[in-house]
Parts: sequence; structure tokens; C-alpha cells
Amino acid sequence: MQLYSFFNSSTSYRVRIALALKGLTAQYHGINLRQGEQRSEAHRALSPIGGVPVLIDAQGNTMTQSLAIIDYLEQLHPHPRLLPQDPLQRARVLEIANLIACDVHPLNNLRTLCYLNETFEISAEQQGAWYAHWIREGLGAVEVLLQRCGSGRFCVGEEPTLADCCLVPQVANARRMNCDLSAYPRLWQVYLHCLEHPAFRAAAPERQPDVL
Amino acid sequence: MQLYSFFNSSTSYRVRIALALKGLTAQYHGINLRQGEQRSEAHRALSPIGGVPVLIDAQGNTMTQSLAIIDYLEQLHPHPRLLPQDPLQRARVLEIANLIACDVHPLNNLRTLCYLNETFEISAEQQGAWYAHWIREGLGAVEVLLQRCGSGRFCVGEEPTLADCCLVPQVANARRMNCDLSAYPRLWQVYLHCLEHPAFRAAAPERQPDVL
Repeated sequence: MQLYSFFNSSTSYRVRIALALKGLTAQYHGINLRQGEQRSEAHRALSPIGGVPVLIDAQGNTMTQSLAIIDYLEQLHPHPRLLPQDPLQRARVLEIANLIACDVHPLNNLRTLCYLNETFEISAEQQGAWYAHWIREGLGAVEVLLQRCGSGRFCVGEEPTLADCCLVPQVANARRMNCDLSAYPRLWQVYLHCLEHPAFRAAAPERQPDVL
Repeated sequence: MQLYSFFNSSTSYRVRIALALKGLTAQYHGINLRQGEQRSEAHRALSPIGGVPVLIDAQGNTMTQSLAIIDYLEQLHPHPRLLPQDPLQRARVLEIANLIACDVHPLNNLRTLCYLNETFEISAEQQGAWYAHWIREGLGAVEVLLQRCGSGRFCVGEEPTLADCCLVPQVANARRMNCDLSAYPRLWQVYLHCLEHPAFRAAAPERQPDVL
């Protein structure tokens, strides 16, 4: 398999965690988002929207969208499971993963911030407030969901799931942007626990070949 | 089951289509997003982020996030399938669904537009350009993915899937905002085909009890 990724892209980071949890490897291709490599014609042939991650499977099938890629890995390599078998537990995992993937990340990703800066010409202060607003709204809701999920060491239970694959990169982003996370004690506890896990360590931005 | 929905909410619309495709019914509770009912304390007890849709299942379990809800319905009521059994076809469906759910919808939904208007005080013209930009980027990419998926009557093949549950509400939004859709012929063809299907008709905004 081949993975097109950027070390600091949180959607790439999700897939890297999932691969590591399943013990899978993929040849790494760094796509430098800061230099706009994702918008090249060559990359758009892989990802029509011009993004990372992109996975090319062993048969040469290309696919985009981190949650679709992780679901595909789950179909082909079901163990260890990243989605619980119990339908309600599974829904809890997907609820947290989708809250992060739909209600937090898209608002604060690079292409959105670029539009705000270049077209609306917002100030650095306005950008910081925008970023912190969506982190506060989103992680506040994640905290409530996590508290409802009990007191396992991971988001939902005692084993890492897709929810943790999404949580850790989002918290890493929030930390990088100096967001205050003190209002989310359960989230913070899960995050720290994940960081001790070898798969989460292997997938971390600073361990990637394209780290800047 | 009970469904908290707003007639014009495209994420609610996705779940309404899925319910109708599976022949399931849920008691309808209208949450008026224009009047801010989603931000009430009562509603936040159901949806911590203050959104729709919310599903309460027959056992009283509450869940949010349209894609998590539809996956839950798929687990409990697998037929008709909204996710193909073949892993690659399934990935194609999830790729389109997630592209719409992550890369298009969050940028143009009500709470995002409210922030831009209230905090950045953008003009109506700027809002229109923002809206059209994400539609163009997103639906342009969907069109490429659809063309790669062959020439079935629905997004992926000859039966409706989760991809169609996401496509139709997003196209409906784009039409409501007068976006130019002439560059997406395959998307348009699938959209028109879906509109002829009784489940898509039943789920349409104008058929909901809270239509304004």
C-alpha cells in the first residue's frame, strides 16, 4: 500500500494511527501542504479535492477521505477492530469520530484558514478567535459524549477505536494552536493514555519522514 | 424511534432518506434552527453541540451525527443495504458521503454562516462567494468521483446508498442558494434520478411537518 500524507495533517494522522493499530505498513509519500503540493495536477489526479490522505491499496485502487480509508482497512483487516461489534458501542465511536471530522476539523483546516486570510483578510487575532471557537464548541461536546461513555482508558472502552484515531490528532492540533483544554478533563485523560500506546507514538507527526 | 429534525437541515434530510429507504418510521420533532431552538438547554441535553438530527431509538438511546445514526440504522436493519458488501464499492460510497459531510457541508451550514456574519461582519456578497466556493470545490470533486464510479443510476451502482443520502440534500442546498451546477452533469443526472424515488420524495423538506 501507499499513503500520501503530510506530517502535520490531522486527517493523515488518523489514517497513520489506524494503520499502526492494525500492524499494517504503507509506503510514505510526503505531500507538503505548506508549499501547495496538494493542488498540483499530479496530486489532483489522486485526490480530486486536492487533499491528504490518499491511500493506494495493494491492487492499485486509489481512495481519499480518512474515515472512508479507515473503514476500508477495517473491512480488509478486521482485527484488531477499530469499530466495536455491539451496535450501540459502535454508534458511540462513530458519533465521536464524526463530531470531530464534521463539526471541528473542517472549520480549522488549512484551506479554510487560507480562504479567511486571503479573501476576507481577517487579522491574526480574528483567526485565533475563530480557531478557538470551533475547538471550544467541538471539544466541549466531545467531552460530554466521552463522559457518557463511561470511564474506560480509551474513548469508548478499554481498547483503541476510530474515536481515538480522530481524537488524538484533533487534540494535537488544538495544543499546537495553544487552545485552553482545561475544561475537558476526560478528553485529556484519554489523550494522554493514547500517547503511551506504541501505535499512536509511531503515527505522531514528529516521527514522519516529511517532518519539517 | 424519535427524530429531532429541521425540515431544511441537510443532515436531518440525510437521516430522513435513510429511514424512508429502510421503511422505518420515527416520531418527528421539529427543531426550529432559525429561532435558535437547537441551542436551548433542553436540546443540548440531547445534542451536546446543539444540532440536528438527533435519533432516540426504541430503547431510549440518544445519538447524534447523521452518518453515525445512519450506520446504526444499517446495523439494526441491514436490508435494504445502504453500504455495499463489496469492500471497494463500500469505500466508494463512504468516500463520496464523507467528502460531502466533511469537505462541503460544515463550511456552509447555518452556524458557520452565523459566525461569519456576526463576528467577521461579512457582506451578503462575500457570504455568497464563500458559499459558492465550497460548493464548487466540493461538488467538482464529487463529480470526478462519480464519473469514476461508472454509469449506474445512483451514485454507486443501481441501488441507492449512503452516498445518495448525502448527495441529494447537498444539491438541494446548492440549488436553494442559486449555485451554478452546470459543470456537474453526472451529479445532476443522479440527483434527478433520486428525486423520482419514493423514499427521497418522502424525506424532502417540503413534506416535513415543520416546513415553513
